[in-house]
Amino acid sequence: MTQLADVQYTKPKHEIRINRVGITEFKLPIYIAQKNGSVQHSVASIECYVDLAAEIKGINMSRLAVGLQKFSSQQLCGKLIKEICEYIRFVSDNSETCEIIYQFDYFIEKIAPKSKEPGLLPYNIIFKGIKTETDFIFKLSVETIATSCCPCSKEISDNSAHNQKCYITIECEMNPDEFLWIEDLVKIAESSASCEIFSVLKRADEKVVTEEMYNNSKFVEDIARECYSKLDELNIIKSFSVKVESDESIHAHKAVAFITN
Amino acid sequence: MTQLADVQYTKPKHEIRINRVGITEFKLPIYIAQKNGSVQHSVASIECYVDLAAEIKGINMSRLAVGLQKFSSQQLCGKLIKEICEYIRFVSDNSETCEIIYQFDYFIEKIAPKSKEPGLLPYNIIFKGIKTETDFIFKLSVETIATSCCPCSKEISDNSAHNQKCYITIECEMNPDEFLWIEDLVKIAESSASCEIFSVLKRADEKVVTEEMYNNSKFVEDIARECYSKLDELNIIKSFSVKVESDESIHAHKAVAFITN
Amino acid sequence: MTQLADVQYTKPKHEIRINRVGITEFKLPIYIAQKNGSVQHSVASIECYVDLAAEIKGINMSRLAVGLQKFSSQQLCGKLIKEICEYIRFVSDNSETCEIIYQFDYFIEKIAPKSKEPGLLPYNIIFKGIKTETDFIFKLSVETIATSCCPCSKEISDNSAHNQKCYITIECEMNPDEFLWIEDLVKIAESSASCEIFSVLKRADEKVVTEEMYNNSKFVEDIARECYSKLDELNIIKSFSVKVESDESIHAHKAVAFITN
Amino acid sequence: MTQLADVQYTKPKHEIRINRVGITEFKLPIYIAQKNGSVQHSVASIECYVDLAAEIKGINMSRLAVGLQKFSSQQLCGKLIKEICEYIRFVSDNSETCEIIYQFDYFIEKIAPKSKEPGLLPYNIIFKGIKTETDFIFKLSVETIATSCCPCSKEISDNSAHNQKCYITIECEMNPDEFLWIEDLVKIAESSASCEIFSVLKRADEKVVTEEMYNNSKFVEDIARECYSKLDELNIIKSFSVKVESDESIHAHKAVAFITN
Repeated sequence: MTQLADVQYTKPKHEIRINRVGITEFKLPIYIAQKNGSVQHSVASIECYVDLAAEIKGINMSRLAVGLQKFSSQQLCGKLIKEICEYIRFVSDNSETCEIIYQFDYFIEKIAPKSKEPGLLPYNIIFKGIKTETDFIFKLSVETIATSCCPCSKEISDNSAHNQKCYITIECEMNPDEFLWIEDLVKIAESSASCEIFSVLKRADEKVVTEEMYNNSKFVEDIARECYSKLDELNIIKSFSVKVESDESIHAHKAVAFITN
Repeated sequence: MTQLADVQYTKPKHEIRINRVGITEFKLPIYIAQKNGSVQHSVASIECYVDLAAEIKGINMSRLAVGLQKFSSQQLCGKLIKEICEYIRFVSDNSETCEIIYQFDYFIEKIAPKSKEPGLLPYNIIFKGIKTETDFIFKLSVETIATSCCPCSKEISDNSAHNQKCYITIECEMNPDEFLWIEDLVKIAESSASCEIFSVLKRADEKVVTEEMYNNSKFVEDIARECYSKLDELNIIKSFSVKVESDESIHAHKAVAFITN
Repeated sequence: MTQLADVQYTKPKHEIRINRVGITEFKLPIYIAQKNGSVQHSVASIECYVDLAAEIKGINMSRLAVGLQKFSSQQLCGKLIKEICEYIRFVSDNSETCEIIYQFDYFIEKIAPKSKEPGLLPYNIIFKGIKTETDFIFKLSVETIATSCCPCSKEISDNSAHNQKCYITIECEMNPDEFLWIEDLVKIAESSASCEIFSVLKRADEKVVTEEMYNNSKFVEDIARECYSKLDELNIIKSFSVKVESDESIHAHKAVAFITN
Repeated sequence: MTQLADVQYTKPKHEIRINRVGITEFKLPIYIAQKNGSVQHSVASIECYVDLAAEIKGINMSRLAVGLQKFSSQQLCGKLIKEICEYIRFVSDNSETCEIIYQFDYFIEKIAPKSKEPGLLPYNIIFKGIKTETDFIFKLSVETIATSCCPCSKEISDNSAHNQKCYITIECEMNPDEFLWIEDLVKIAESSASCEIFSVLKRADEKVVTEEMYNNSKFVEDIARECYSKLDELNIIKSFSVKVESDESIHAHKAVAFITN
């Protein structure tokens, strides 16, 4: 076979450095460790980027796909993300950095408060790694669905209060030698909301959650601050942000609060 | 210029009739009449299909796009949908039927119950026309966002009840010489829910909607039946269906009810 | 504990039968058998409906969630779908039918044509079961991403032809004692397109797929007919439909063809 | 009427400043000026945020909705965005900044290259304003759909080359007294791609675009650099970024390049 031309290694028309080139919506099966000791399988949607030197026309894009697949039989964790970043950075001759993002559903078993009926709840998780020549940054993002119940509506109404689904997203960058389970961040989010949710609720359970959310009425501002304050006390997180989005039951729009440190 | 080949008029490898061929996600600006006498502008996402005779390779797809654009400066209504269907069916030599679907946001002004503060609320509307050699069918679909409040949660809890956003979709096929405003279908949907929603609510209004939803607690089943029953009484609708989807504030999943006649 | 009221068993205001009541966007981890003998894990988004007798206010919705979780540790297949339907129909006192729909990503390993580099490709799968008193219907739907290359563009242009991502969806209802692997339906879809796609392509592979798609230029109509004709020859499928959607590289809209038998 | 309590003005449990609190997915009809002198109507999805002082429990959220509606009958432009920001910042007693984001479809008439057939193409536009005590920043983002054709595939293949839909997003922050039309940014994006797209193409036009895209084969890296270089030459833009996303016709995933200055 004659050698096929290597178009991407030629000079580009405009010699401009590119911050990030890569692939998105690349899907792979994954598995990760659970806090309870067992292992959980899921499906990840992946982004993978490298930078590109000004004087090179294109990256070798198939090496990104090959790199991601090469590690796909190993257990996903911060350490593996670092290894994949290092590998892809290494095989990308004209790049100095590599960034990868894995987004996937993760399930946690929750037990209904009265009936003790078990059920699995899904959480939207993001693992993000950025490798430069000298540094590696790892960020974990966990989205928890919970209930928010409005304190203003409660205060001014003869009875009840409007309540709704509320999406709490915590993103944090860990200190190098610290570790946090997804389960721990979910606990922080759920205990900051008006009430946690469940996959299965018998009537006795429904009574508990209805009364609890009413007793813990909170604005998105309250939930965001409560969450932020609990993360702050942990001392093992380098930097973090909180986003709370409440899908208002009395409006077509949503209410949102963001706090960044 | 020499004549370019007309590939689509050749014989196909497999002589199989195709039920629907056409284009989707075709966008155009539109405008339609409001019940209050004025005119409203919006943006439609359009689907347009014709059938294709077994012995012809392909439809002339650019004629669909040309046909849709040809009528884009006219006011959208059932009659215009019929005209567009007829035109596209006419210019599609090897087709017997034409189906078009326009989906767009429509706004209705709603006045807050106490403060009388005005606000615009969006509704997701679908106009659908199907033209055959002998017939024309027109279907109108209106999605209304409202509040649902759970009667079981209310009954068993010491106070309050879980409530949430609820999406009520009415689809109806009109009798040839009858007419219904989008505004009329929205009224039916809103009056069937636990409470209607608003774009702007001052505190005095929030008290009203909170108390009203609690006093009108309804399952998705109740809302679907109420809606269905009101549509049935109208007598001007040939056939209709109701879908009610409640984005449960105490679960990750949604609750849904469908009724078709 | 005093007995909590059973609101859903009371009489409804309007005694109207409801065709389908249930839950949507209910997520669970699943695993299924692959044609190569191993087992694959994924995450399903589930819908589950029962009908409701006219004289009963509401279904017992938590039983649907409990039913789905009860079977979640078993291998997903048509037989399990039937068992779940039967179970949920059985525990739903006032219902005659049960319908469940599982949608999930499924991966198949594909080997690049020249370099023989392996890679996993995702396919969007739907398992759907409907159980009535006397019958059980099982439907399998497989969405395959492939390439379509336009024969008209090829014929009239001095060189090249426009090509693009093309989504081929086959839905089929099996005869009771027949069986088809997802892998078999994917083969039918891929061999009907202009060219199949891959997760990893080295340059030698890219040459192969580029030339193959150009040599196999096909309209959406051609791909749909080719697919339909191959399904028809199988004789083991009771009924089926084909949808081909091409995300046109020269337009903002998409081109689509549907065939139903 | 007795005075209703003002819960949001009380002290929060945790005195933490909140960077952004507000509403999202708030929809309103809008209209804006076109370069050709006429006016165009569309529908915007709006986000509106203010910050919140540490010692106040909540913002007055209905004032955001009232503020957005108050200006909804005026023509949308950078100046109006500034006015709305200023108004909402003014009525939000405990906030120092206001940020608003309008996202909407905008149509431009394009004439097919040979047949001269006219057609409207949609572009996804974002207007973003940030008002602080002393500053106002305005950002315009324009997403253009075009065609990308792969130079590597062209070089190594006996004929043709893979090509596909390509989404080019330019975001730029203007100098205070400069102005750019959406139409101008679209021109820059389209002239940087392998070929521009059209809503209607007759066969003679299809020949032109097919040959043009093949003659202008470009990687996402090439398109991003070309775009960036043209923006750089303009000298009237303070800062800008370019994102190019190509929906690869030979892969399930997408290829992407980002450049920021």
